[in-house]
Amino acid sequence: MSEQEHQKPQSYMATNRVEALTDGIFAIAMTILALNIAVPSVPTESAVMEIPRFLKGLWHVLLNYAISFILLGVFWIIHHRQFHRIKHIDEKLLWLNMLNLMFIVLIPFSTSLMSGYDNVQIADVVFEINLLIAGLFCFLQWSYATKNRHLVDPELDQSIIDAGKKKNLVIPLVSIAGMALSFISPEWCTVVYLITPFIMGIFFKG
Amino acid sequence: MSEQEHQKPQSYMATNRVEALTDGIFAIAMTILALNIAVPSVPTESAVMEIPRFLKGLWHVLLNYAISFILLGVFWIIHHRQFHRIKHIDEKLLWLNMLNLMFIVLIPFSTSLMSGYDNVQIADVVFEINLLIAGLFCFLQWSYATKNRHLVDPELDQSIIDAGKKKNLVIPLVSIAGMALSFISPEWCTVVYLITPFIMGIFFKG
Amino acid sequence: MSEQEHQKPQSYMATNRVEALTDGIFAIAMTILALNIAVPSVPTESAVMEIPRFLKGLWHVLLNYAISFILLGVFWIIHHRQFHRIKHIDEKLLWLNMLNLMFIVLIPFSTSLMSGYDNVQIADVVFEINLLIAGLFCFLQWSYATKNRHLVDPELDQSIIDAGKKKNLVIPLVSIAGMALSFISPEWCTVVYLITPFIMGIFFKG
Amino acid sequence: MSEQEHQKPQSYMATNRVEALTDGIFAIAMTILALNIAVPSVPTESAVMEIPRFLKGLWHVLLNYAISFILLGVFWIIHHRQFHRIKHIDEKLLWLNMLNLMFIVLIPFSTSLMSGYDNVQIADVVFEINLLIAGLFCFLQWSYATKNRHLVDPELDQSIIDAGKKKNLVIPLVSIAGMALSFISPEWCTVVYLITPFIMGIFFKG
Repeated sequence: MSEQEHQKPQSYMATNRVEALTDGIFAIAMTILALNIAVPSVPTESAVMEIPRFLKGLWHVLLNYAISFILLGVFWIIHHRQFHRIKHIDEKLLWLNMLNLMFIVLIPFSTSLMSGYDNVQIADVVFEINLLIAGLFCFLQWSYATKNRHLVDPELDQSIIDAGKKKNLVIPLVSIAGMALSFISPEWCTVVYLITPFIMGIFFKG
Repeated sequence: MSEQEHQKPQSYMATNRVEALTDGIFAIAMTILALNIAVPSVPTESAVMEIPRFLKGLWHVLLNYAISFILLGVFWIIHHRQFHRIKHIDEKLLWLNMLNLMFIVLIPFSTSLMSGYDNVQIADVVFEINLLIAGLFCFLQWSYATKNRHLVDPELDQSIIDAGKKKNLVIPLVSIAGMALSFISPEWCTVVYLITPFIMGIFFKG
Repeated sequence: MSEQEHQKPQSYMATNRVEALTDGIFAIAMTILALNIAVPSVPTESAVMEIPRFLKGLWHVLLNYAISFILLGVFWIIHHRQFHRIKHIDEKLLWLNMLNLMFIVLIPFSTSLMSGYDNVQIADVVFEINLLIAGLFCFLQWSYATKNRHLVDPELDQSIIDAGKKKNLVIPLVSIAGMALSFISPEWCTVVYLITPFIMGIFFKG
Repeated sequence: MSEQEHQKPQSYMATNRVEALTDGIFAIAMTILALNIAVPSVPTESAVMEIPRFLKGLWHVLLNYAISFILLGVFWIIHHRQFHRIKHIDEKLLWLNMLNLMFIVLIPFSTSLMSGYDNVQIADVVFEINLLIAGLFCFLQWSYATKNRHLVDPELDQSIIDAGKKKNLVIPLVSIAGMALSFISPEWCTVVYLITPFIMGIFFKG
């Protein structure tokens, strides 16, 4: 241990605890998404009438829940794959990861805003800006780590580095498309995110 | 590391972080179940009268809490046992797991709905559909992983594969039974889930 | 792996994921305790007057928070020490652990009830029954695991088994003392729990 | 295992589960910060007018969110670095860590108080006292562990011990500065915390 310590500066750390913190934050953000689906308080007498009506109006909330859950899933998979290659972490990479998580954690809030006021364009744009910034931090994280080659697996191919960069630009680009669509239909523009896993799937095979 | 990388495609990953994310989500979903048990706001003067009355009415809420906690426990044990055998994860299995978790995370919501309006049949049916879908994703996950033998322990017996499939159908079948019972007694139909761990116990020994 | 599988039946599992689930549940229960400390909604004009008054009344809530946090800490340390010795887990031990967690997760609720209505004796008794049951499950868990010697470290001394049993009875006994004290002073009876870590400290050295 | 057990007393434990609990608590505290950013309930008709107004007023809430998130990040990094050096944990260190976490978990509450009533000086002071105490427990933890050399990496340099102590005093000192500034400007005094990561960065290199 001590020899290894002398060879590498103190600020190069193993990645396991960063992964544990990140997994915890994703798990909670995903679960909090469902907390936004509130059960209404109606008197027992009218519940037989009111609950079916509530459930009919619920499908749009559930669709938004599904979109954000899948997006968090995509972000988590991106993180998972990046840290499959990243072997050490330095101070800057640690903070890039923290700032990334700071915007991941805001996704339940912006989903709730977008879901509650989907006829208000600015609410959708807030959601899309949130995803855009979170996506850009993923891109920055990968670019920084692969530029400092001692942080990643030394045998890492340039082709994998480039494919990773392209993949990390999918969410920012879809977010910009969503913002453009919000001028046409604020209610439906977020559905565009559902294509994200499929676009990413193409890059995985390519 | 690098040799191993060349032998298997990038999309085959170790399972440890998927397990960490899953354990986190289960832990939070189980804890959020208890958040649905709200402490009433009553004035200090009438608290001596009101709190005992609140506690008397609480047993039904606590029963529903116990049912959902035990069901989440059963789902977690199923996941635990599947990933005891699953050694690698590919893109499809990862997304089957994500979709499974998407319905696991909804269980606190549907429990709260069922618990608050247990005289309304549709509220119970929503709870049962939630469990039915979560259970089917467990079944799909096991079927997919065991069909792609490179994902599981190579020494895995066909008898264990088949027993696993049967076990994974217990919750969907109990959910269908619950739905049928909801036509007779919406208030009590969910108690049927309490037999799930015992039915599963039989398959463990068999 | 496969040989090992043939030697031990399927139902004997490693303990690492049970520990991960348990750690997650404790982390969330501890954090949710603080969620019960609500920031009041007062108009901006009167905030300069109202906030200091709110903070003056807060110390009793903070004391209850500290009591429950420390108790969750004690329960977590008990779990930690038990699973330091427990090497395998079978179906029954898994369910004893689940039922233990089911009552751990209720502690934020019963703390909130006790904290909000500490002049109402029944609210304190609910808190103490919660701790009593959680404590008894810890005792049952340890008794079961050490009776089935293949589940624990084979070199485990009988003296450590017995000390563990005694330690696990501290919280149930303190809970019964708390219930007796609640007849005298419902407002202060829970302070008795603060002695728990010290009583346990004696057994550690003994 | 058993030999090792005889050499070291029962109360010296490995640190992995303490790290898992700590990572879980930090992950939840960070996520709960964002829960404090509530989406307003406005009628659909006036949402087009109200939501942009709500978003305009949001930037101060988001700034406070960012300050607390970054501070939790700093505390987590401190913990991470300490436990990179701490190899065993005894009863006292375990409780110092628990008490540290008890004040970490209060940060979302005190952020919410400070954020909601930032014109009220006492609300800011509560936030700063919270950080001061959490920071002092980090200092105590490091001092205790390094005084009991069997708990830390035996090759640990005195220079690293001293640098660690200085680093751990940064947050307490910034908190005291924040309290002094709160007499001048209660609304802006917390911005001072944003310099914390930079001050720490100097010590890392030094």
